[in-house]
Amino acid sequence: METSGVPPSRSTVSRTAVLVLRILTFVFLLIALILIAINKDSDLGVKFSDVYSYRYMISTIVIGFAYNLLQMAFSFFGLVSGNRVITGNGGYLFDFYGDKVISYLLATGCGAGFGASKDLHNATDGYDLSNFFAKSYASASLLLFGFLFTAVASIFSSYALPKKAY
Amino acid sequence: METSGVPPSRSTVSRTAVLVLRILTFVFLLIALILIAINKDSDLGVKFSDVYSYRYMISTIVIGFAYNLLQMAFSFFGLVSGNRVITGNGGYLFDFYGDKVISYLLATGCGAGFGASKDLHNATDGYDLSNFFAKSYASASLLLFGFLFTAVASIFSSYALPKKAY
Repeated sequence: METSGVPPSRSTVSRTAVLVLRILTFVFLLIALILIAINKDSDLGVKFSDVYSYRYMISTIVIGFAYNLLQMAFSFFGLVSGNRVITGNGGYLFDFYGDKVISYLLATGCGAGFGASKDLHNATDGYDLSNFFAKSYASASLLLFGFLFTAVASIFSSYALPKKAY
Repeated sequence: METSGVPPSRSTVSRTAVLVLRILTFVFLLIALILIAINKDSDLGVKFSDVYSYRYMISTIVIGFAYNLLQMAFSFFGLVSGNRVITGNGGYLFDFYGDKVISYLLATGCGAGFGASKDLHNATDGYDLSNFFAKSYASASLLLFGFLFTAVASIFSSYALPKKAY
């Protein structure tokens, strides 16, 4: 393989673990996206786009989704061909900074989603919006899991940094 | 020094940079904490603790503040004595996981603070709460900088991981 000083078995285990994490993130973010995008209360005419935080949340989900799709494509190609798509140091740095930035983005989206849901629910307790906010919570919870999976992937990609040449 | 294979000058530069980042984070979080804690609207009787997201935001600020205080104490002691307080791999792992977890925590607090401010301001546009939310935004902005400084420190502590023995 491409590494030196690290047993190949460990490298393969890490790469498989990261691929599983990316697939899980992809699935969770997809469901989170669908849940929040179709979320509306017909009686009161409230939909996700009325809440600024949910629009931000959707943006972070879409960006995280696109990033994981790209990474999964790279991983599958890498597993099939036995080579990394981005050769040299670039691949490790892309993984490291990509995972880091995307996980931070998902964390902020998650905070915004939960925060707005809790406080808007309190602020609108005169209206029957329990169903609307329950679905928003469900979407934010799935985003939370997507964030946690990406954060763990980010730990793996940090540990992979020593493999790059200085 | 304690490293091998890396020139001491680079190590010292990194440690000084990280110390400066921690001091900046400490100062920004302190001002953010004061701003949000004294934030209240006397006319309407609204204060920070009425907003669930702000209480969460304060929790993340206090935890981040305490963590940076501890790290600064370690750094100063390390610079003075020339030795790391936590010897062996422990110090690198503490920095790595500490920076990672705390920066994620600050990111979620920041998302919650901005999200709730924006949407609650929209939801309460019948009331004159501009001043209250302006101060909340200021606090969340300082928290955003605190988060970004910690995120950069986290990049340094990730790059320092290769120094630990495997």
